[in-house]
Amino acid sequence: MDDETRFELIMEKLYTAVCCDVLDELGYRNQAMRPDIRPIDDDKLLVGWAKTILAVDVYHVGENPYDKEIEAVDSVVPGEVVVGCTNNSSQNSLWGELLSTAAKARGGRGAVIDGLVRDVRQIRQLNFPVFCTGFKPVDSRGRGLVIDFDCPVACGGVLVAPGDLVVGDIDGIVVIPQAVTDNVLRLALDKVTKEKVSKSELQRGALLRDVYAKYGVL
Amino acid sequence: MDDETRFELIMEKLYTAVCCDVLDELGYRNQAMRPDIRPIDDDKLLVGWAKTILAVDVYHVGENPYDKEIEAVDSVVPGEVVVGCTNNSSQNSLWGELLSTAAKARGGRGAVIDGLVRDVRQIRQLNFPVFCTGFKPVDSRGRGLVIDFDCPVACGGVLVAPGDLVVGDIDGIVVIPQAVTDNVLRLALDKVTKEKVSKSELQRGALLRDVYAKYGVL
Amino acid sequence: MDDETRFELIMEKLYTAVCCDVLDELGYRNQAMRPDIRPIDDDKLLVGWAKTILAVDVYHVGENPYDKEIEAVDSVVPGEVVVGCTNNSSQNSLWGELLSTAAKARGGRGAVIDGLVRDVRQIRQLNFPVFCTGFKPVDSRGRGLVIDFDCPVACGGVLVAPGDLVVGDIDGIVVIPQAVTDNVLRLALDKVTKEKVSKSELQRGALLRDVYAKYGVL
Amino acid sequence: MDDETRFELIMEKLYTAVCCDVLDELGYRNQAMRPDIRPIDDDKLLVGWAKTILAVDVYHVGENPYDKEIEAVDSVVPGEVVVGCTNNSSQNSLWGELLSTAAKARGGRGAVIDGLVRDVRQIRQLNFPVFCTGFKPVDSRGRGLVIDFDCPVACGGVLVAPGDLVVGDIDGIVVIPQAVTDNVLRLALDKVTKEKVSKSELQRGALLRDVYAKYGVL
Amino acid sequence: MDDETRFELIMEKLYTAVCCDVLDELGYRNQAMRPDIRPIDDDKLLVGWAKTILAVDVYHVGENPYDKEIEAVDSVVPGEVVVGCTNNSSQNSLWGELLSTAAKARGGRGAVIDGLVRDVRQIRQLNFPVFCTGFKPVDSRGRGLVIDFDCPVACGGVLVAPGDLVVGDIDGIVVIPQAVTDNVLRLALDKVTKEKVSKSELQRGALLRDVYAKYGVL
Amino acid sequence: MDDETRFELIMEKLYTAVCCDVLDELGYRNQAMRPDIRPIDDDKLLVGWAKTILAVDVYHVGENPYDKEIEAVDSVVPGEVVVGCTNNSSQNSLWGELLSTAAKARGGRGAVIDGLVRDVRQIRQLNFPVFCTGFKPVDSRGRGLVIDFDCPVACGGVLVAPGDLVVGDIDGIVVIPQAVTDNVLRLALDKVTKEKVSKSELQRGALLRDVYAKYGVL
Repeated sequence: MDDETRFELIMEKLYTAVCCDVLDELGYRNQAMRPDIRPIDDDKLLVGWAKTILAVDVYHVGENPYDKEIEAVDSVVPGEVVVGCTNNSSQNSLWGELLSTAAKARGGRGAVIDGLVRDVRQIRQLNFPVFCTGFKPVDSRGRGLVIDFDCPVACGGVLVAPGDLVVGDIDGIVVIPQAVTDNVLRLALDKVTKEKVSKSELQRGALLRDVYAKYGVL
Repeated sequence: MDDETRFELIMEKLYTAVCCDVLDELGYRNQAMRPDIRPIDDDKLLVGWAKTILAVDVYHVGENPYDKEIEAVDSVVPGEVVVGCTNNSSQNSLWGELLSTAAKARGGRGAVIDGLVRDVRQIRQLNFPVFCTGFKPVDSRGRGLVIDFDCPVACGGVLVAPGDLVVGDIDGIVVIPQAVTDNVLRLALDKVTKEKVSKSELQRGALLRDVYAKYGVL
Repeated sequence: MDDETRFELIMEKLYTAVCCDVLDELGYRNQAMRPDIRPIDDDKLLVGWAKTILAVDVYHVGENPYDKEIEAVDSVVPGEVVVGCTNNSSQNSLWGELLSTAAKARGGRGAVIDGLVRDVRQIRQLNFPVFCTGFKPVDSRGRGLVIDFDCPVACGGVLVAPGDLVVGDIDGIVVIPQAVTDNVLRLALDKVTKEKVSKSELQRGALLRDVYAKYGVL
Repeated sequence: MDDETRFELIMEKLYTAVCCDVLDELGYRNQAMRPDIRPIDDDKLLVGWAKTILAVDVYHVGENPYDKEIEAVDSVVPGEVVVGCTNNSSQNSLWGELLSTAAKARGGRGAVIDGLVRDVRQIRQLNFPVFCTGFKPVDSRGRGLVIDFDCPVACGGVLVAPGDLVVGDIDGIVVIPQAVTDNVLRLALDKVTKEKVSKSELQRGALLRDVYAKYGVL
Repeated sequence: MDDETRFELIMEKLYTAVCCDVLDELGYRNQAMRPDIRPIDDDKLLVGWAKTILAVDVYHVGENPYDKEIEAVDSVVPGEVVVGCTNNSSQNSLWGELLSTAAKARGGRGAVIDGLVRDVRQIRQLNFPVFCTGFKPVDSRGRGLVIDFDCPVACGGVLVAPGDLVVGDIDGIVVIPQAVTDNVLRLALDKVTKEKVSKSELQRGALLRDVYAKYGVL
Repeated sequence: MDDETRFELIMEKLYTAVCCDVLDELGYRNQAMRPDIRPIDDDKLLVGWAKTILAVDVYHVGENPYDKEIEAVDSVVPGEVVVGCTNNSSQNSLWGELLSTAAKARGGRGAVIDGLVRDVRQIRQLNFPVFCTGFKPVDSRGRGLVIDFDCPVACGGVLVAPGDLVVGDIDGIVVIPQAVTDNVLRLALDKVTKEKVSKSELQRGALLRDVYAKYGVL
């Protein structure tokens, strides 16, 4: 399955909750990010391979403060989602309009930041899905510094390796380890079918007890 | 007054703020839930009798982990609102699409959870008002366990007894003790009238000092 | 430049992020409020001179509990924005529909509260921009007390002097010290132009490295 | 019973835990302060009538900033414990060496502050029991302002009326409403006896099940 | 090695930091509890096999509220350490003097509670090591309920299985999975030796660079 | 005045509170660190010039993970106090016994860490004053990384430049900007005298009102 097919399939048929259920069954129980990471557009779906970035709060403007950040964004390839770890900074905005524009122009599919962003109105207009913990209009210059990228990071309490599959919707963000991606997608498609039947029987008035006994999903 | 009449009256004429003001006058000063409990739809109004559920964070999948939860939801009767106490868990989602579907099919009017929910997109489509502290796509299986229902609980910092009247709108959730329900509704309708007159005079340019002196509402 | 011209210019051409960048350059690095202060309408822009109010949590109803608050609101003059410091209270709502109505009738342009508000639906209908940390339906009577106004306050972590320029949009709130207002506006207009060109080149596929080297904005 | 006798009795025979148990039995279930209020000396016992003070965080030095605080401390009478409500300020130290010295000289028996104190070394030397949430060396001048005293306050999450009995030890602080003081002391002395017998049987190896069945205390 | 020998060895030669270093090497990187779990005596060492208890905050007094708790404590066997999970409750004290007395009489070696305790003065006199997040004098009756024991729990952010080895000192608590216990002890004894030599060279003035190059410990 | 004389003078005659009062008078109002930074020994005094270190939470073991940290500690010179900024990490311990030993051997006078430390028992034995936010037995390897030193940092909410004077006692930590050091010491010595006289009069029963009117200190 090529990336485009895979991404379309996920966005049309799946959602984060069913991915989490399947990951649970496979023994991956800590793959959903903390609930303080929210989409800037409730309706936007996000799916792509993790392009990780690691930033740190700093307290002065060093030499070439944007170098690593620029290098990271310029190295985005199609199908990637920027996953920015700021260690939950509330000091500054790691991400904004120009970085979104640049990442999108390289084929980036969105960004997940465990910190703040700015230029929210403009990012919405770009149609570039961004998930973050909040907004603040200040720049990272002299406040935050990208020190590494394409390295393991933690984001929203989940360890993310470069190349993991990131899926996001209004319920939150789930990180699917690269090795089990296709397995998760296959099992998730099965589960979606059972949930639809369960829902339909419940709507016709069946007791939850009986429906759960029959289909085993909740 | 039957339930339907009462609920319609509240949804058309009243709102949570005026209910709180009247409860204050009657000496019930801690009936509004914490502000982190938010509606998943800003426009949805919620009113109904509390159907309480008590859940706890757990760390393994026990036998029949959904039994109490299923029993609780299957026992919902028309006019009830599920009030789920998770002790502010951020570990898992106690509530989701299938439970909403089941509760609605039994006549349930909504749910208030002092914790997380999932399947937000689908719940919105169900037209079932849900208030909660946030969203996370993971299931409660092996993470949360319903251990009791129809018992006193705390939700959003308010003690809720089964059968209390729960009213919710964009401002938040207020819990009206069953014994004073009709008294609160009567006094609230009076207060609404005074507020309208005050507002109208303020819009015409009157000083707040004079309007407050005249009507005594703020 | 008169106030109306200045306010229109800001609302049409500028935004909080570019104001923060320019304030950074001028050495004012802590002028953006904490990200928990959010607009009740994402689309509303806010600009005006700070009219400060200082409130405190209390635990009984004293004599004339609304006196200072009424005096403060009645003294609003055209072009002002109420900046209410509650020291981050989550106990009660300092602000609501009637105060918004009164402030607007006096020429007030909005309110920023580092605490809770109520009557959100009604305030939205008033078309009066309000920024706050959350909503709760309870009144301040016996819970919060205005003890001073037109004094320096802290709001969202920023020191605000009466007469500072307050600018708010979806990214947050920035406070521009009165003395540098016109300087900030002038520099911000320049920067906006550079950002537009940068964005346009990025959209055409230029590398961030090259665009940043050329225009020096990020 | 005069104050000295009562205080000695409490300090020699009772402790906060048994007072809480008895208050529970009498239906007063929220009389123990939050655990972040700690003694500056683990070994000091505190007992006395509440002398309440209400302070607020401020952001400039007003006229006569210490007036109310001085008035409050100068009005302390023998047997009183200062209960200072700062609404959990972490901005400044409401209390310190000179205030402790002054309060002690007036007959004050200690202080409980839901905020910070300073001069801890010197206060320990004074043998004046102080409970607080932490230490910070900055003064309240221009940071905190006493606005009232001898009024109801909240301290550590408990409503305290002037004249309530405050009892503190290493386990924390309990507030005994004035009206039930003697009743609580009498019942607590009874319970202490039962606990001693239970403990003694447990130490001899009895099962908890049997001891609890016999004495009903845990 | 029998338990007494093992426990003595750990208490005399090892400490939590070296155990964590060795667990890191073996790939167990999340075995140290959060720093808010502190000993009630700085000097007490704790070591023993985990006897887990799971409690939940409740809001009414049910039937036989102490039954599970009594059963749990009565089933303690020599060499065990009670590990109580309250999901970080700050509502009540799960643990106190009588439970400590009972657990100790059964051969229990201490307790670790991710919540509050009471009777601290008396527990200190018992010479029974207790680690917890704080103190509060209120009982669990009607506030907390033990719902299970001898089950997996989380305590201080670490998953603890019944029978894991719990080691505590002033630096905190480390949980050593049962299967690797002897391996960890052996490796830790080796590392202690290297650290002593490093320290000794540093005290004689060697540069950290050279000492680290030589022994590889920090 | 040479360093040794200055340090002795401060430790014998001054304390952090009086330094803060004098800094307030000079307009430096944010020089006291947050109260969560505590000494590991209540009785230890700390004074010396800031040697700053900046660390970041990381999620994998990079190459030569200790290089910068070793370089920083090896460059300590007599009279310096290590000021470690971890951005309030609770993930790992930046500081411990070997680093304390090395820093002390180079002439270092103590350490202030806005994060965790380990080896507390051993550090106490070294007689090396350390202030921090808590203890955790895990190492920084693969969890925290020193990325810079001798640069401006924030520690406990205070901006610290290399070479600022750091003073610590049980009340907390105050940072005296290098340029005003001697001025602060001189004024503080004056103030100490006034406080002693005030205290003495209060102990003899004078009213606070009269003593404050006379000496103007509180």
